[in-house]
Amino acid sequence: MATEVQIFEGALDKGLEGVVACTTQVSSIVGNTLNYRGYTIEDLAQNSTFEEVVYLLWNNKLPNSSELSAFTDSLHKEMTLSPEYIKILKAIPTANVHPMAWLRTAVSLTAHLDKDANDNSTEANKRKALSLTGKMSSIVCAFDAIRSGKDPVSPVAGKSIAWNFMYMLGGGKEPDAESVKVFDTCLILHADHELNCSAFATRVTASSLSDLHSAIVSAIGALKGPLHGGANEQVMLMLKKIGNIENAQKFVKDALDAKEKVMGIGHRVYKNGDPRAAILRKISEKLTQKIGEPQWYQMSTLIDDTMNKEKGLMPNVDFYSATVYYAMKIPTDIYTPIFAVSRMAGWCAHAFEQYANNRIYRPRSKWQGKEGLTWKPAQNR
Amino acid sequence: MATEVQIFEGALDKGLEGVVACTTQVSSIVGNTLNYRGYTIEDLAQNSTFEEVVYLLWNNKLPNSSELSAFTDSLHKEMTLSPEYIKILKAIPTANVHPMAWLRTAVSLTAHLDKDANDNSTEANKRKALSLTGKMSSIVCAFDAIRSGKDPVSPVAGKSIAWNFMYMLGGGKEPDAESVKVFDTCLILHADHELNCSAFATRVTASSLSDLHSAIVSAIGALKGPLHGGANEQVMLMLKKIGNIENAQKFVKDALDAKEKVMGIGHRVYKNGDPRAAILRKISEKLTQKIGEPQWYQMSTLIDDTMNKEKGLMPNVDFYSATVYYAMKIPTDIYTPIFAVSRMAGWCAHAFEQYANNRIYRPRSKWQGKEGLTWKPAQNR
Repeated sequence: MATEVQIFEGALDKGLEGVVACTTQVSSIVGNTLNYRGYTIEDLAQNSTFEEVVYLLWNNKLPNSSELSAFTDSLHKEMTLSPEYIKILKAIPTANVHPMAWLRTAVSLTAHLDKDANDNSTEANKRKALSLTGKMSSIVCAFDAIRSGKDPVSPVAGKSIAWNFMYMLGGGKEPDAESVKVFDTCLILHADHELNCSAFATRVTASSLSDLHSAIVSAIGALKGPLHGGANEQVMLMLKKIGNIENAQKFVKDALDAKEKVMGIGHRVYKNGDPRAAILRKISEKLTQKIGEPQWYQMSTLIDDTMNKEKGLMPNVDFYSATVYYAMKIPTDIYTPIFAVSRMAGWCAHAFEQYANNRIYRPRSKWQGKEGLTWKPAQNR
Repeated sequence: MATEVQIFEGALDKGLEGVVACTTQVSSIVGNTLNYRGYTIEDLAQNSTFEEVVYLLWNNKLPNSSELSAFTDSLHKEMTLSPEYIKILKAIPTANVHPMAWLRTAVSLTAHLDKDANDNSTEANKRKALSLTGKMSSIVCAFDAIRSGKDPVSPVAGKSIAWNFMYMLGGGKEPDAESVKVFDTCLILHADHELNCSAFATRVTASSLSDLHSAIVSAIGALKGPLHGGANEQVMLMLKKIGNIENAQKFVKDALDAKEKVMGIGHRVYKNGDPRAAILRKISEKLTQKIGEPQWYQMSTLIDDTMNKEKGLMPNVDFYSATVYYAMKIPTDIYTPIFAVSRMAGWCAHAFEQYANNRIYRPRSKWQGKEGLTWKPAQNR
């Protein structure tokens, strides 16, 4: 019994705006509230840890003490990169290579050394997700070391992913507790975000029943773009170009006059503000003050407030994360890779869900080209 | 002036079936006719060459003699892999690595050596597409050489991509004209296919304004799956497992009784047959006869005809390409990479079109999970 297929052209060339592609139990956006598995992002940012949030996203519940302890241990064990893998990473060119392009290659490569790469069972996918999420911060920090001609710093056992990221990126210097706490909050805030472009890319690739690594590599490619994760890097480059608060006023006025997009401002889904930006705004104020460079925060709020007043547009997660990372002395081109370190958790959760209830993503397109042409030999054209 | 967003839930969890995602001028499916830029696939398979079809897909017209000659020259020049790149390829593990996983990494790596990698202008994208499409067959053949401990064979200048593929895969043995012609036809038939899963993956990744390499790497990941390009390999593995014509009868009966999917049979869009399968069926008959193993064709037609009669399901492009490649002595796990060699042309055309009229792909999901939960300490859970 064939069911009639309903044709929908209402989102034609509009990036599927308004099309509800799938059901989900991973995360939701209701008004300006973001929830992971039913918990608000404010609640989790305040109380949880990144490791606990990863467990939540993958298991649809918060862990009890022994579950959390076992999960954290197995996740942390995966942080160490093998000598064989590091050797290959060192053979990959870094000159003029964007960190996200390098990351795309490096993550694709992890599959070559993963004994489960060709096993697409639920159990194997859980092991692969653990390996990918554990390794991600080590891989990003390895990139920063290798491009500077240094050996990657090994992670310290028993320390969190946030602690180890700061430690490895800092070349083996123990990070202060406040930086670690802030960074952990950033990881929680970026871990998932409903059916964003890279989560959707994960699901599209997974939907041909391709393997988890392929799905994740697609997501990294999608996140790289300046209309998605690439925006946090672009925000900082914009602020540096503006340079000071006086220029910022002129910058916003010019952008408004020219009806130009301002990086990090506006969001397809949130119309009344991105809850993550509200949290990051407070952190940005505090940290830029602390390093004695409050101008970055002041420039940001001037742009934020003016765009809101004049256009009703509000900042998204990328807008204030830029100055937070800047204040933590993280290289600008590592901002988007940090997004990937965190979002790996969400991508894996989306892949699990897609595999469990799959149909291949295969929409249609509407023909607007030529018709009824006939081939003729080249000399007759 | 905000426009009301139309919400559509009619394709929920159905892989966007019936959703018309974008306009296109690249290729179209009308009934059981497939057209590239307005030319039927039968016309092109009969008269054109793969190089000419690549030009057509990228330029929306067939080239005149001088255009074809200049384009073919520049495409063929890109076939040669640099010693630097080959050295890195040799460092990538191949043991137990699926060729499509290796290809995903290898193509991602080409970006690291491409001076245009960070240039997303239209001109740079055309140069990158030429480089990717030229190199693809050389990369696939390099894989087969490297995994056997051999040096990759260099392509011969002035010869076609089809000729060189057969030559390089054959370890430097000159291919016969008939094989080259058949292979060229296969490349034409696989070059594009409207908004299939991997073309859609290309567009989703490109839509964050990520770079061309990222978009193509996503497509390779999507093509890898057994519900997409991975099916041609699976068809051959299925036929080998069945083994002979007597078993084939039992196999189809069992599959029908158990309501199981048969690899290579059925298609989301074509209900009255895939025109590519019709062309490949004839080639399969001829080639399996020629190598004295007509049983592969006979088993295929028995499955094809029975599934059609009993279920109204008809073969797709993957069904007969399997035995065609088998008869050409191509290793089974190279079938899907061949698909990628050809489809690169279509992926690039879709990326060009997406960049030219872009909006980020960001559909929504429907919440079916828990609500209103509050974080509690682990010991209280």
